[in-house]
Amino acid sequence: MDVQRSKFRIGLIQMACSLDPNENLAKAEWRIREAAAKGAQIVCVPELFRSQYFCREQNTAWFDLAEPIPGPTSESFTRLARELRIALIGSVFERRAAGVYHNTALVFDADGSLAGTYRKMHIPEDPLYYEKYYFTPGDLGFGSFDTRYARVAVLVCWDQWYPEAARLAALAQAQVLFYPTAIGWHPSEKAQLGASQHDAWQTIQRGHAIANGLYVAAVNRVGYEGPPEHGLEFWGQSFVAGPFGQVLAEASPAGEEILVVECDPRLMEDVRRNWPFLRDRRIDAYSGLSSRVID
Amino acid sequence: MDVQRSKFRIGLIQMACSLDPNENLAKAEWRIREAAAKGAQIVCVPELFRSQYFCREQNTAWFDLAEPIPGPTSESFTRLARELRIALIGSVFERRAAGVYHNTALVFDADGSLAGTYRKMHIPEDPLYYEKYYFTPGDLGFGSFDTRYARVAVLVCWDQWYPEAARLAALAQAQVLFYPTAIGWHPSEKAQLGASQHDAWQTIQRGHAIANGLYVAAVNRVGYEGPPEHGLEFWGQSFVAGPFGQVLAEASPAGEEILVVECDPRLMEDVRRNWPFLRDRRIDAYSGLSSRVID
Repeated sequence: MDVQRSKFRIGLIQMACSLDPNENLAKAEWRIREAAAKGAQIVCVPELFRSQYFCREQNTAWFDLAEPIPGPTSESFTRLARELRIALIGSVFERRAAGVYHNTALVFDADGSLAGTYRKMHIPEDPLYYEKYYFTPGDLGFGSFDTRYARVAVLVCWDQWYPEAARLAALAQAQVLFYPTAIGWHPSEKAQLGASQHDAWQTIQRGHAIANGLYVAAVNRVGYEGPPEHGLEFWGQSFVAGPFGQVLAEASPAGEEILVVECDPRLMEDVRRNWPFLRDRRIDAYSGLSSRVID
Repeated sequence: MDVQRSKFRIGLIQMACSLDPNENLAKAEWRIREAAAKGAQIVCVPELFRSQYFCREQNTAWFDLAEPIPGPTSESFTRLARELRIALIGSVFERRAAGVYHNTALVFDADGSLAGTYRKMHIPEDPLYYEKYYFTPGDLGFGSFDTRYARVAVLVCWDQWYPEAARLAALAQAQVLFYPTAIGWHPSEKAQLGASQHDAWQTIQRGHAIANGLYVAAVNRVGYEGPPEHGLEFWGQSFVAGPFGQVLAEASPAGEEILVVECDPRLMEDVRRNWPFLRDRRIDAYSGLSSRVID
């Protein structure tokens, strides 16, 4: 099945998140309306936008933040997508069953229908990012979802370091890879490592755009969460890269911001004709990618 | 089998190539001696350094440039590696059988022995890069080769656009990915597209370094070949990226140059402990990578 060929506009909501889930949802809705008013047709919010980034600590109480699908967030986004006639990408701490929770992204089409569900596949576990404690790894693979305006894939945060995920979404003919994200600096590391961490983060995602000839949209949260010195400074800097890796728009590291960027499927077509990487893949020789290590 | 843990120094020979294969070999040998004198322990020359980039046109006569393995180039590199006690990476237009030619890289260890052979797997075919006419796609896969100083992989030019190739070499525990290369600008495109083409080329390779936590060394030719307006301006700018994607050294676009860069396996170890991407790969979910397109 071929994809949409008309230009479309994507909207990235870079936002800070408070301790109050209802406040965060209300703010996200307001920001989404703002993005739609600016012409955005596919809008994405940051990872786990309804709460502060609770994975900073291991605490059974935080499982109370989880919600089913359908549930409050998905119902709100359904209504909003339908009302604004936009495709909408949300992020939900999903309670799937007692003891089975996922870090889940939902894609709503412009009529409010659920176009697709993605459960975060690559789960990190590092100091202040204790995600393996909270999230069962996803079991839905790396798909793409048709919306009224474009075919999109959603990958979440840590997924952005995996070329395999980007490639699989591209093979499924996604035109945009959305990465709802919650990445930031440890205050103690920022002076020494902050710039190189951010640079690696943007570079590898630009690399996915280049390797696959598609658009990449990284949607990060912003703001400081947690105690001084032992919290996380989310670095914002949400951005969109074009199909040859060029940065088309970039938000600041300092505050909330909305980016609206036009995407052109004809440019993708053009880039892929001139740099036809997909033509020459050696699919007969890639089986080792399913190995942990090739000893 | 675990890899070397001591620091080692790599040498990149950025050179221009004349019409005379013997002259190019003599120059390469002289440059390799220079690199060794500067302390390089693993030295790599550009792709197909023994000739001008004949793939600019389709001409049966150019098959005369091919040579067997063993053959003149491999014998020369054997002697040189042994004499200088360096590992040496060469590039050969290989005549394997009548009508079967490859774009082949050879890795010689510091005792002159042949440590490994790589036949270019991804073959381009674009205006002035008619490689599918000359080269049968490689049939040896994406391996790594132990040398006295480090374990290395060689991938060739067009391979650099494929995250699969880099990943497979990394899973085979390469510490450095060498990319002997012949990439340049069409004169008619340079003003408009030259900067973005070079930027994409460097960015995707830095992305491989980041995704895999290893060193990447791109070794390009330099200089103008062919008729004015219809030739190729090879863009030089050979570079080394460290295991978090930082550019450690970069040659100019304008002339011949030798880069000697120290690599530290402890830094690789450190980067991979802090950003443990290989830990979390979803090898249960990557089988689609062996598909052409996921319809």
